[in-house]
Amino acid sequence: MVNDDDVISPTPRTGVWFIGARGSVATTATVGALALLRGLAPTTGLVSELPQVARAGLPPLDGIVVGGHDVGGSMVERAEDLAATGVLPVATVAAVRDDLAAVDARVRPGTDGAADRATVDRLADDIRTFRAEHGLDRVVVVDVSSTEPPVPEADDVASLAELDALLDAGAAPVPASSLYAYAAFDAGCPLVAFTPSTGPNTPALVELAKKCHVPWAGRDGKTGETLLKTTLAPMFATRALEVRSWSAFNILGGGDGRTLADPAAAASKTATKAMAVEAILGYPVEGPVRIDHVADMGDWKTAWDHVTFEGFLGTRMRMQVTWEGCDSALAAPLVLDLARLLARAHERGEEGAVAALGFFFKEPLGSTEHALADQWTALTRWCATLGAHADAP
Amino acid sequence: MVNDDDVISPTPRTGVWFIGARGSVATTATVGALALLRGLAPTTGLVSELPQVARAGLPPLDGIVVGGHDVGGSMVERAEDLAATGVLPVATVAAVRDDLAAVDARVRPGTDGAADRATVDRLADDIRTFRAEHGLDRVVVVDVSSTEPPVPEADDVASLAELDALLDAGAAPVPASSLYAYAAFDAGCPLVAFTPSTGPNTPALVELAKKCHVPWAGRDGKTGETLLKTTLAPMFATRALEVRSWSAFNILGGGDGRTLADPAAAASKTATKAMAVEAILGYPVEGPVRIDHVADMGDWKTAWDHVTFEGFLGTRMRMQVTWEGCDSALAAPLVLDLARLLARAHERGEEGAVAALGFFFKEPLGSTEHALADQWTALTRWCATLGAHADAP
Amino acid sequence: MVNDDDVISPTPRTGVWFIGARGSVATTATVGALALLRGLAPTTGLVSELPQVARAGLPPLDGIVVGGHDVGGSMVERAEDLAATGVLPVATVAAVRDDLAAVDARVRPGTDGAADRATVDRLADDIRTFRAEHGLDRVVVVDVSSTEPPVPEADDVASLAELDALLDAGAAPVPASSLYAYAAFDAGCPLVAFTPSTGPNTPALVELAKKCHVPWAGRDGKTGETLLKTTLAPMFATRALEVRSWSAFNILGGGDGRTLADPAAAASKTATKAMAVEAILGYPVEGPVRIDHVADMGDWKTAWDHVTFEGFLGTRMRMQVTWEGCDSALAAPLVLDLARLLARAHERGEEGAVAALGFFFKEPLGSTEHALADQWTALTRWCATLGAHADAP
Amino acid sequence: MVNDDDVISPTPRTGVWFIGARGSVATTATVGALALLRGLAPTTGLVSELPQVARAGLPPLDGIVVGGHDVGGSMVERAEDLAATGVLPVATVAAVRDDLAAVDARVRPGTDGAADRATVDRLADDIRTFRAEHGLDRVVVVDVSSTEPPVPEADDVASLAELDALLDAGAAPVPASSLYAYAAFDAGCPLVAFTPSTGPNTPALVELAKKCHVPWAGRDGKTGETLLKTTLAPMFATRALEVRSWSAFNILGGGDGRTLADPAAAASKTATKAMAVEAILGYPVEGPVRIDHVADMGDWKTAWDHVTFEGFLGTRMRMQVTWEGCDSALAAPLVLDLARLLARAHERGEEGAVAALGFFFKEPLGSTEHALADQWTALTRWCATLGAHADAP
Repeated sequence: MVNDDDVISPTPRTGVWFIGARGSVATTATVGALALLRGLAPTTGLVSELPQVARAGLPPLDGIVVGGHDVGGSMVERAEDLAATGVLPVATVAAVRDDLAAVDARVRPGTDGAADRATVDRLADDIRTFRAEHGLDRVVVVDVSSTEPPVPEADDVASLAELDALLDAGAAPVPASSLYAYAAFDAGCPLVAFTPSTGPNTPALVELAKKCHVPWAGRDGKTGETLLKTTLAPMFATRALEVRSWSAFNILGGGDGRTLADPAAAASKTATKAMAVEAILGYPVEGPVRIDHVADMGDWKTAWDHVTFEGFLGTRMRMQVTWEGCDSALAAPLVLDLARLLARAHERGEEGAVAALGFFFKEPLGSTEHALADQWTALTRWCATLGAHADAP
Repeated sequence: MVNDDDVISPTPRTGVWFIGARGSVATTATVGALALLRGLAPTTGLVSELPQVARAGLPPLDGIVVGGHDVGGSMVERAEDLAATGVLPVATVAAVRDDLAAVDARVRPGTDGAADRATVDRLADDIRTFRAEHGLDRVVVVDVSSTEPPVPEADDVASLAELDALLDAGAAPVPASSLYAYAAFDAGCPLVAFTPSTGPNTPALVELAKKCHVPWAGRDGKTGETLLKTTLAPMFATRALEVRSWSAFNILGGGDGRTLADPAAAASKTATKAMAVEAILGYPVEGPVRIDHVADMGDWKTAWDHVTFEGFLGTRMRMQVTWEGCDSALAAPLVLDLARLLARAHERGEEGAVAALGFFFKEPLGSTEHALADQWTALTRWCATLGAHADAP
Repeated sequence: MVNDDDVISPTPRTGVWFIGARGSVATTATVGALALLRGLAPTTGLVSELPQVARAGLPPLDGIVVGGHDVGGSMVERAEDLAATGVLPVATVAAVRDDLAAVDARVRPGTDGAADRATVDRLADDIRTFRAEHGLDRVVVVDVSSTEPPVPEADDVASLAELDALLDAGAAPVPASSLYAYAAFDAGCPLVAFTPSTGPNTPALVELAKKCHVPWAGRDGKTGETLLKTTLAPMFATRALEVRSWSAFNILGGGDGRTLADPAAAASKTATKAMAVEAILGYPVEGPVRIDHVADMGDWKTAWDHVTFEGFLGTRMRMQVTWEGCDSALAAPLVLDLARLLARAHERGEEGAVAALGFFFKEPLGSTEHALADQWTALTRWCATLGAHADAP
Repeated sequence: MVNDDDVISPTPRTGVWFIGARGSVATTATVGALALLRGLAPTTGLVSELPQVARAGLPPLDGIVVGGHDVGGSMVERAEDLAATGVLPVATVAAVRDDLAAVDARVRPGTDGAADRATVDRLADDIRTFRAEHGLDRVVVVDVSSTEPPVPEADDVASLAELDALLDAGAAPVPASSLYAYAAFDAGCPLVAFTPSTGPNTPALVELAKKCHVPWAGRDGKTGETLLKTTLAPMFATRALEVRSWSAFNILGGGDGRTLADPAAAASKTATKAMAVEAILGYPVEGPVRIDHVADMGDWKTAWDHVTFEGFLGTRMRMQVTWEGCDSALAAPLVLDLARLLARAHERGEEGAVAALGFFFKEPLGSTEHALADQWTALTRWCATLGAHADAP
């Protein structure tokens, strides 16, 4: 049954189902989508509104319907907190408050990780019900939940058959993020792995995505320091300057900062953060990568990067960068971009990890390209190809 | 007559004729070329040694012979000064001292600017003599002399015929850099305009370059802050982030710093420095561009850039960059790169401003592209084309 | 006649009369005083609430009544603008809105600078009327108006008699800030010269202050970069490290930024900003001091200081500081502090420039001490002396 | 027997005995002392040459004779390494090479930590022999050896008697630094604890120092980030600004960096680094303190401090500092200063931890004062007292 109240437009209707729906990123993205719908915000930050990307023939912003999984909390409360700390404009939150409450009412209880069949079935059913109730053309699942510690044993499950057997036995060695990924694929939905958690990135789930013919993209959104690194490292490479050390320090507050204050969880993040520079330069570069929790920073993150490099005749030089960004504000438009792009890829019949979406990720699955400008070229070429098809609006 | 003492190799012999031969950049480039010849230095900083560029079939480093124009000074003294302040390694300067003295002996008196026929003839003869005496396949003239103030009236000379008449009359309204450019073209030599001075960038001289069938490249080497700006600005553009202000402050000592402490000379430099960000972003961005002389900095330059930008839902964020570089060390390999690339372009019969060399310049003449990564793509494509010809080594 | 509506407390009642009452600093100070009165704000930033200063026996915050001179505008509008840009809390401005409107109603038209007798008489009458109508024990005049360009000819007026004659003739060569100072002294009021404008700092006005037996303090509030400089420079001095250069760059928006974008007005400010480091170190230090207007910064100021210094055996080292402050928020509590301290000094019969208040100023009139910690020692000793008198509350 | 070759002057002769004599700090200090003796270096960095300190009547620099303990290496090699990396001037090292070799010949084998009687006796004998052979008035022992991990059990030894019994039994639970301290006190020598290691800072050794009537000072030289912190924190305190977070990140190479890359050793250092800000402000301040090893930094250390603070009406502001210093160059003059000051204190009969020397230390033993300016006041007052005695030169 289609809930007519949600019918915003007769144009293509795309569901965005957030894992971690009441967190800062999902809430900011939802507030933004609602504000855009009401003409209360410009499209600043939305890559999908740039002409080189929009030409892919993306589903419209005003056809987006939001739902999701989470445990506890409320999107309205979260939005009001974000407004109080200057991340979201007070007036915008007030204007979309009722719409946001309606979205929050669609949020279903998530899982804390019982890795069994009943859990993945329940999660998949939630998504299917959402798609049916709102008459959606397709639903893109977006994981923006808290970062999990690495789970190496998830890789030991060699095939989908093995994973299915373990789920049936109620003892699959996979984290919650992988259960959500299973549910998404099983429900026929594309998936955005916006965190460094394991998620779909195991042999068994890669196999499931192919079996279900769905595309997915990951992992770990590139929103701050790594964005800078993958912008700056190619400069050194193409100028034949030799980078000798690259030290990276991050301080941040908020829930993300608290999670990453746990060294186990931080290990996932620092691993993806460290790989980009060496991948671009082609040689090892020493230097620490640190993430520290400073509660007073709230949703803001400050990164300090210190780079030493060598030029002609061995001359030693230095560069420092300080980045003072708001992670939620940086991430939120990207998850909307990714939802639109994966929806279009799904429509065009693509499946598996979409290499052309590496532009958005610290660890670009399906691709070895880390340099931002080259990722942009790959993205826009792919968009041109998608847009060349007759079904594009 | 060929001076056999200078015959370093039977391979192609390329002359590099520096305008401002006893300055820091030319001296560092010469010390570097001599050290490379003796296997005393790695190729760090030399873009022309990267495989994507080297494939153009460039003349070899060991076929380079250096000469130039300057007034007063000595390359040996300059090199020892640079070693004393840590810009050049003491041991390297000692090792190439005699070779450097031999180069210095080839430096001919320059001009302080009498804009008449006799002057340009004398300058051109110096270059022709250098080419003949050393049996060079070709000579590339490289202007690395002190920055001049802007000379708007040089643009009023509408044609080569008019310029010739004014030179004959001994009263051409053009600065020294343009006289050198005239001499270079007249002697059939490609020219690198590595400073923001007027040089070849007037209607009459553009006409002369075409008449003489020589390629040239300019202007104002992109070695520090603008390198950063043209690397970073595309990141904001492709992420749809709106840059609100970009403030840029430079402090530097040395001769260049002293010259730029003169607001008239600095005007040339700040004009080329300011254009890149707006060209990339496509909209005006406020913010000062300052160059200040701090004698204590010596040959080192520190730039501080402060950027404010707006993201999703109007969130305001900031980025700061500090760049601590040695201008001579950054510029020197680039002038060797440019000499090799223009020599190859000349060999292939190219003429006029070479757009594909915009990668090296703050103001890329012949091109509207400022983004470093896109300039790199253009450069390497051009190199591939040059290299596809049968005459490439 | 005393307006009973204004009687806030039977305790000592102190008037604060702002020159530039509708500017950011006066408005922020007034909002703050009103919020403190209602218990809506902590005393953060108020030096006069620290026990070492409070022991002077200062007039209470809840006895403060505000008035002032200005041309155009409204304190309420200004406060709402400051709230919109995040300088003042929205809720605080809303809570004191009516009180603020009542203060704004007391603001009298200022002068654009007709330097004649009628003007100073009118200005002084405004202050006297304010004192009488509100039954104030005393009124402290605080100049927080826009910075004027230097007026060297004001110093040519050698005596009060000469100034009086010139005022009678309608042609005194003194700027508006000096007319306000004349009026303040003539009305028997202490004066805070919080800007670098000429104000009371001429021979004739120094004479007038003595004649009227009033104390005054100045000049140019030390709120940001100079605060840092006078904190850091003593570290180099007491560690015998030789500072070789100190470069200082400031970017700021708002009205103050606009005023200082005029090089003539900026000259006043950069002169006072440059003197502190050399005064502390005892030797000349090179390096630029720049103030640039960047509208996008709003009421925020970012300063970047770059210091080179030499240590043992000539080793060269560097320090950089970035200060991101809100000038209004930094200055506002200091003007309340100064008003209370000068009121107490007046009560105790002090007159002339109060050297012990150098802690608050870039150019500490009456003192040669610039080092912040030594100024703090001088301030707190003076407060102890003031507090030792029987009349202290 | 006095070795006449070492007689530099008939003036008071002071021995400086370095624990870790072949490390960077001791070598730099020795090269500096030798260079000063030959008039090859200015007194930059020497606090003891400032008039306010020199007035204490300090033993002259030209009466200093250096010796020490270490294991392996050579001061000459170390000095040449330091010259190669730009820490020491090449010419200075060459000029004092022979003198330095003579000092190195006096270095005796240290201990790796056998905590028994024989060891402390041997170490003490080495010092006594040095004093006798060179006819020294007194010897100050200076610990500049590698930082040890914390040894909490050393505090469990409640008295000297107990420590003596444990040493006799060959099983005292104290680290090498405490054995050296025992030897120094036992030989009647003042001691500088320039590292955060345990050293003399245990109940038993404090008792021994008193018994032997020797003064000592510590601990952990304040040379970089903590110097900045204790300079800047009082600014916030006296301006009533509330510091909300202070994050501190250090990257350094060299031997010190390698040692501190071991988390156990770093624990000693980060503990002393963290205490200063809270001690000055009087309330807890969150924020990480990190030390990371980056080999490419060599003897250079870069610290980045990020401070958030709150001003009037809750306005949030930020300050960042980057300090690029050479630890050896910063520490070396201070150990010479401390040797001279402790020698004078010893001459005047002072004993125990000298509180007035807190100016030099991260953890000022015997004092609760951390603010640099107040420590300077305490130091110079003490110097004035010392200088007032008749025996001062």
